[in-house]
Amino acid sequence: MRLVIVGGVAAGTKAASRARRLDPEMEITVYQEEPEPSISECGLPYLLSSVVRERENLIARTPERFAQNDIEVLVRHRVQKIDSAARELSVLDLKTGEAFDDTYDRLVIATGARAVLPPIPGAELEGVFKLRFLTDSDEIGGYIEEHSPKKATIVGGGYIGLEVAENLCRLGMEVSLIEGEDRVALAYGPEVSEQVEAELEAHGIGVYTGEKVEEFTGEGRVRGVKFGDGKLETDLVIVGVGIKPCVDLAEDAGVEIGVTGAIRIDKHMRTSLPGVWAAGDCVETTNLVSGKPAWVPLGDTANQMGRVAGTNAATGEDILEFPGVLGTGIFKVFDLGVGKTGLSEKEATEAGFEVVSAGLWANDRAAYYPGVQKGFLKLIADHATGRLLGAEGAGSGTDKLIDICATALWGGLSYPDLVNIDLAYSPPYGPALSPVIQAATILSGKFERAREGLRASE
Amino acid sequence: MRLVIVGGVAAGTKAASRARRLDPEMEITVYQEEPEPSISECGLPYLLSSVVRERENLIARTPERFAQNDIEVLVRHRVQKIDSAARELSVLDLKTGEAFDDTYDRLVIATGARAVLPPIPGAELEGVFKLRFLTDSDEIGGYIEEHSPKKATIVGGGYIGLEVAENLCRLGMEVSLIEGEDRVALAYGPEVSEQVEAELEAHGIGVYTGEKVEEFTGEGRVRGVKFGDGKLETDLVIVGVGIKPCVDLAEDAGVEIGVTGAIRIDKHMRTSLPGVWAAGDCVETTNLVSGKPAWVPLGDTANQMGRVAGTNAATGEDILEFPGVLGTGIFKVFDLGVGKTGLSEKEATEAGFEVVSAGLWANDRAAYYPGVQKGFLKLIADHATGRLLGAEGAGSGTDKLIDICATALWGGLSYPDLVNIDLAYSPPYGPALSPVIQAATILSGKFERAREGLRASE
Repeated sequence: MRLVIVGGVAAGTKAASRARRLDPEMEITVYQEEPEPSISECGLPYLLSSVVRERENLIARTPERFAQNDIEVLVRHRVQKIDSAARELSVLDLKTGEAFDDTYDRLVIATGARAVLPPIPGAELEGVFKLRFLTDSDEIGGYIEEHSPKKATIVGGGYIGLEVAENLCRLGMEVSLIEGEDRVALAYGPEVSEQVEAELEAHGIGVYTGEKVEEFTGEGRVRGVKFGDGKLETDLVIVGVGIKPCVDLAEDAGVEIGVTGAIRIDKHMRTSLPGVWAAGDCVETTNLVSGKPAWVPLGDTANQMGRVAGTNAATGEDILEFPGVLGTGIFKVFDLGVGKTGLSEKEATEAGFEVVSAGLWANDRAAYYPGVQKGFLKLIADHATGRLLGAEGAGSGTDKLIDICATALWGGLSYPDLVNIDLAYSPPYGPALSPVIQAATILSGKFERAREGLRASE
Repeated sequence: MRLVIVGGVAAGTKAASRARRLDPEMEITVYQEEPEPSISECGLPYLLSSVVRERENLIARTPERFAQNDIEVLVRHRVQKIDSAARELSVLDLKTGEAFDDTYDRLVIATGARAVLPPIPGAELEGVFKLRFLTDSDEIGGYIEEHSPKKATIVGGGYIGLEVAENLCRLGMEVSLIEGEDRVALAYGPEVSEQVEAELEAHGIGVYTGEKVEEFTGEGRVRGVKFGDGKLETDLVIVGVGIKPCVDLAEDAGVEIGVTGAIRIDKHMRTSLPGVWAAGDCVETTNLVSGKPAWVPLGDTANQMGRVAGTNAATGEDILEFPGVLGTGIFKVFDLGVGKTGLSEKEATEAGFEVVSAGLWANDRAAYYPGVQKGFLKLIADHATGRLLGAEGAGSGTDKLIDICATALWGGLSYPDLVNIDLAYSPPYGPALSPVIQAATILSGKFERAREGLRASE
């Protein structure tokens, strides 16, 4: 029995390891286009500034380590074609330029996603980069070493752009960030975006929102950026305006693509073709709150999907299920943690819910305990049923609060359920009532006043 | 309509404030025996060492502040007797020694709990204290100021004893801790107790477990402690061997007492007497995991109960419910956070479950992210159904992990549900898969191997 896995980052390597654990006899080969497998891509922004010291720190396992487990990992190999009827693959060895054929009994597609570089004039200039792979970070690192850029421009105010902005700032560069929409961190509500912008500005980053980049200027090397209202001198540009799933190989093979543009799978991670599973950033799943197809490419989800796909592909049976996602995410920008789970108010409204929400600023520990800081938390719920739909936050303790809310969503709880939830309290770890409880209590108060006509003063 | 509340700490003052919010007309009086209401008792250990700078920091609201809200708070007043048939109270003004009668339409009993001082010879010596009220901390503070004790002994290895040990150590004292059982932090499994003992010893605290204190020695002032295997010189003793609910007043009035020794209430916080509610450390509730009566006196729970009792007492209707508790708790000892929720393995076994558990040491952030530390987490589940029964942990990030597990328990999740839960990941905030997911995955692996007969190597 031969299992081939196309793609060797989070989902692909997890699927391989899981298959090996379940079946010591199976032949397992992983093809990976980039020169290293098993890269922690989420760590790349931190490698730029040496917050993560060595590039090797981001390589969880080398091909040699996989070989010890009898998993063949062939890097710099591109799978060019899948013949699903014959269960054959056409593979190009990128080192030698030689093409060869391979066969499989079972196949896992884990081709991931790639960064989008919009068609901006000058995008081909030296010094204009995207950051998706370790090779991108190597190139950026080499460029910085060679040219010692003083001024850097980030295009895109999503989490990658924000993380990169922080890390270039750490290198002493004068950093500007340009975002086409009217605020950064668009997946969040305006309260959170405001805090992120304030955090950037507090660290000397110039923030230009509602500005479309028109041109990168320079001769050979980038020297400037033109946008609607002005222009900036720059020695380095990093574009982080989004990623898209790598589905060409699958699509050419006849695999069904979903409405989001990513590979459609069932809950057992099977694609529309027999003997072919898919996992990771190249697949579409379900948002469990809205019930709608969702494409949420994240490393932790890829890992979980890889386990399911690897198990089912190894056994050929529908043993494990991947239920879907909540859309939980978190990032750090300087000292500000920003996270969300479920739907934002905007997303919830678009999904057809009549939304009620409560946002508050709350302490991260007892008011009298040293080091107390404030954080913002907003709960978003369905007005009709009280069902929790989402949460977002920014500031100290946000990671904990978002994980509490994600677990509540996972358990299908409504906000009245959260008013008396028994969370862990001690002065160093939170206020007596968690901000989650405080926000749920505010929502309950609104509800009571609306429904019961209680004589509430506020 | 006159509402009287007996006890003015967390539950009592919350009930009063809530009642005022719901009913601007009601007469509200709170009787409080201690000289200040609305004390954050959880902060007392930190006041000893000036981690919390001022005693005023622990007083959330003064009687004057309550008066602004038209709530009468009478401190140094002891309610001596309740005549529930006549709805009358007999009250003693402790400042003047004068007794007087009062009446109520509705009554909330929130008499709290008091520290137990076991009958050890010498317990009456100067320098032997317990720590429950702000007045206790005043006395200890005065004693320390006057006598500059060099050596301190803590009796009891529960969370109060541990917190006090840390804070006396901060004052430069040579601290010993004596625990009658064979390990400290008995509510936890042995892995956690070991870590707590190691943390104490790393900070120079002498830990004596399995030792029963036989006598405090000294003339007038305490100078030594004798126990089974030896004796210690000491200038200060703080006894933290437990607390018990203050129920004498309620019991004398005919209020039904539960099997735990605390006041029995229904889910609307009503006692067995008409017009009488109770809340806080003096009441018994339900452990929602075991379904059994539980007495878990904690500040956050008292606050939540106070809201329910205050609402229902103010309206006279069964508007809000308090469902019960999970037994969630957390404490810090030096740099170690220690928390639990639900049942420990021992408690789960005693409650009749066939227990399966998985414990692991996991990183608190990505392995490559600076400052990474390990923490221990154990999940405890029902073997037959997979239902999560409890969790405990120690180390960095424990507060977050315990709150995730508490929310999972609150939502009635089983461990297979937690394998694919969508929690928030980013390198600064956790490993790619949360320790909760890792532990649930270990449990699932055990289960699969047992049930499916998969050829798993481990």
